[in-house]
Amino acid sequence: MRKTVFFVSDGTAITAETFGHSLLTQFSAVDFREIRLPFVDTHSKARDAVSLIDRAAEADGTRPLVFSTIVDTGIGGELTAANAHVFDMFATFMEPLEEILGVERSPRVGQAHGMGNSHAYEDRMEATNYALTHDDGISKKLDQADVILVGVSRSGKTPTCLYMALHYGIKAANYPLTEEDLEQPRLPAFLRQHQRKLFGLTIDPERLAQIREVRRPGSRYASIKQCRYEVDAAEAMFRSEKLPVLSTTDSSVEELASRILLEQGLQRDQV
Amino acid sequence: MRKTVFFVSDGTAITAETFGHSLLTQFSAVDFREIRLPFVDTHSKARDAVSLIDRAAEADGTRPLVFSTIVDTGIGGELTAANAHVFDMFATFMEPLEEILGVERSPRVGQAHGMGNSHAYEDRMEATNYALTHDDGISKKLDQADVILVGVSRSGKTPTCLYMALHYGIKAANYPLTEEDLEQPRLPAFLRQHQRKLFGLTIDPERLAQIREVRRPGSRYASIKQCRYEVDAAEAMFRSEKLPVLSTTDSSVEELASRILLEQGLQRDQV
Repeated sequence: MRKTVFFVSDGTAITAETFGHSLLTQFSAVDFREIRLPFVDTHSKARDAVSLIDRAAEADGTRPLVFSTIVDTGIGGELTAANAHVFDMFATFMEPLEEILGVERSPRVGQAHGMGNSHAYEDRMEATNYALTHDDGISKKLDQADVILVGVSRSGKTPTCLYMALHYGIKAANYPLTEEDLEQPRLPAFLRQHQRKLFGLTIDPERLAQIREVRRPGSRYASIKQCRYEVDAAEAMFRSEKLPVLSTTDSSVEELASRILLEQGLQRDQV
Repeated sequence: MRKTVFFVSDGTAITAETFGHSLLTQFSAVDFREIRLPFVDTHSKARDAVSLIDRAAEADGTRPLVFSTIVDTGIGGELTAANAHVFDMFATFMEPLEEILGVERSPRVGQAHGMGNSHAYEDRMEATNYALTHDDGISKKLDQADVILVGVSRSGKTPTCLYMALHYGIKAANYPLTEEDLEQPRLPAFLRQHQRKLFGLTIDPERLAQIREVRRPGSRYASIKQCRYEVDAAEAMFRSEKLPVLSTTDSSVEELASRILLEQGLQRDQV
């Protein structure tokens, strides 16, 4: 069974898509074709969206699903003209909320979080610059760090740091454990003095070998033997230093970032 | 009026929070205290959440709002015991979806998108590495780029590139226009040969001066005169080269990334 799905929003449509997609994953028997329609913020654009949806209905021979988060009820209302099952995600919750809160809504389309007007934005940019200049042990100035990720090369430290910076304004540094480090019984002293900020990342050695193979094919660095040695030694180090540890093998960057913040008790910016 | 709001999920709770927060921004008269409770994936954790919610109800003297995206109906159902207004965002849409699709759901909690099992993940990591090594004109190997952002120093190129890479697996390079470039009538030839991939970023000169001032206080680089000159020259260049242009002054990184993808006709990974 095949079904076209539209995520329609007056903004990026990221929320509609993320939420709608998580609903659809519960129906593995259906082959969904997912289309995002962002920035539908005028009546005319909403009518264009209706045309697109109607064409998909005709081509598929079945009514598409539409998930909408358009804030303006007038513009969002245009979608009900489409030959589709329309879920107005905004309106669904807005009415009961108005009733519970006992106040009427004061419509605001999205919120500006540009470089012009947001402290949170500046924090995120500063944190991103910090992550870029404190990546892979280039700098050892770690006093400013909110968190320091430690792990072997290619274990997922850099993307996790960048994600925490871009989304939460968290200053995340990272340090790659070298072979020399791993031969020692303890972490380097300049890291140990920041013990409370340290977080270990580990990864399945087979997976690590695959990732390294792409980078340096046929190298000792990418060999399964070397990867096993490094991961075992790093995990032993984490245990003896009593670091919290996460595996990046089966977690997305989003999950890793969220878990690290939770476990480290870090506050996130309101984005 | 003050109200505590909980975003509860078996995953990161990012979706519940993003969506719930966008609903709440419509009620500017209410002072919301927002609390995220991620990874509530067992009955015992759900009951802990209920205790937390009940304590907030007592402290506030008013029932909190709860937005839940817990997939497991048994675990999510525990929340109804709380002294709160509970919005089960998942269940609200799941029932009508089952009816429309004519199939029952096959529950799956989240989806693993770790380093272990996702092509999309690899694309995102490769794209992130690409963005890091093609940042601020360090490399001029632009053949592989999906998109190349052009703009003056500190106009927001780097975070936008990183966001597109981390979220969409888009290979985004960027090139900072130097004073020397801006004195020329045309863009450098090595950029012009990639004309279809180019995207101009601009920014309000006053805002640019503020940002640069943080970086190099009192410098010519940060002076309003210099910022005005550079932004004017860059915008003239964009016009004569017929580049699509976005201003970063009032747009978030999320919005910029989404608009660039839309205008460039780039497909995003399904994340």
